Amino acid sequence: MKPSHIEHIGIAVKNLDEQIEYYQKVLGLTCYNVEEVADQKVKTAFFMVGETKIELLESTDPEGPIGKYIEKKGVGIHHIAFAVDKAQDFLDNADKNGVQLIDKTPRKGAEGLNIAFLHPKSTHGVLTEICENPNK
Amino acid sequence: MKPSHIEHIGIAVKNLDEQIEYYQKVLGLTCYNVEEVADQKVKTAFFMVGETKIELLESTDPEGPIGKYIEKKGVGIHHIAFAVDKAQDFLDNADKNGVQLIDKTPRKGAEGLNIAFLHPKSTHGVLTEICENPNK
Repeated sequence: MKPSHIEHIGIAVKNLDEQIEYYQKVLGLTCYNVEEVADQKVKTAFFMVGETKIELLESTDPEGPIGKYIEKKGVGIHHIAFAVDKAQDFLDNADKNGVQLIDKTPRKGAEGLNIAFLHPKSTHGVLTEICENPNK
Repeated sequence: MKPSHIEHIGIAVKNLDEQIEYYQKVLGLTCYNVEEVADQKVKTAFFMVGETKIELLESTDPEGPIGKYIEKKGVGIHHIAFAVDKAQDFLDNADKNGVQLIDKTPRKGAEGLNIAFLHPKSTHGVLTEICENPNK
């Protein structure tokens, strides 16, 4: 049940193009994919750092989750995603330990992963995602 | 100059012992070290996830950086640290690209690493640390 690695770190940004430039010029990373996730109302840009992705998230709708987050808290680190082998087992254990789940069963996320979110109220302020790679 | 991996993710917490229990029980991670960093006025707990550490930070002084952060923003993800080979080269390049540096030269951080922080005003809300392992 232990996560194998940090799958990605999600960062809420206002302007994807400006941020891509910053991550490339200052951090020396390469953007390898830009993808729109319609049901999350975001446009995302991905960078690889070792085994972890940096996922920049620009809202496509002020009423979407990232739009609301920026309105309330400003831009910055939004969530951490842990890579797990069996997402459902992880969720069942979290539930048993009193964690409030945003997703009781995994759903499809960016890059074809099965994902689920734990509620930040139960995770001490850290919005936590788990990701299972169905092609692994 | 490209970072090799995410060295750690720093998370500001109120109660280290409670949080250690959460990370062990719910996330299945193992705390391998608890360390006080006097000049940062924090007590830290470390967990390994793949090649990345989760570093929980409890303030030992309300006037310290983590105490002030929690007062202003609440608990949650505080910073990301990138592992780099040559911290000074990284800082020089960031400076050249107009990034405001908290540390113009690396200083000693937790676990004997040479560390430096970029100012979140220049990094679009993401407090960014770089770490160089002098024993590598």
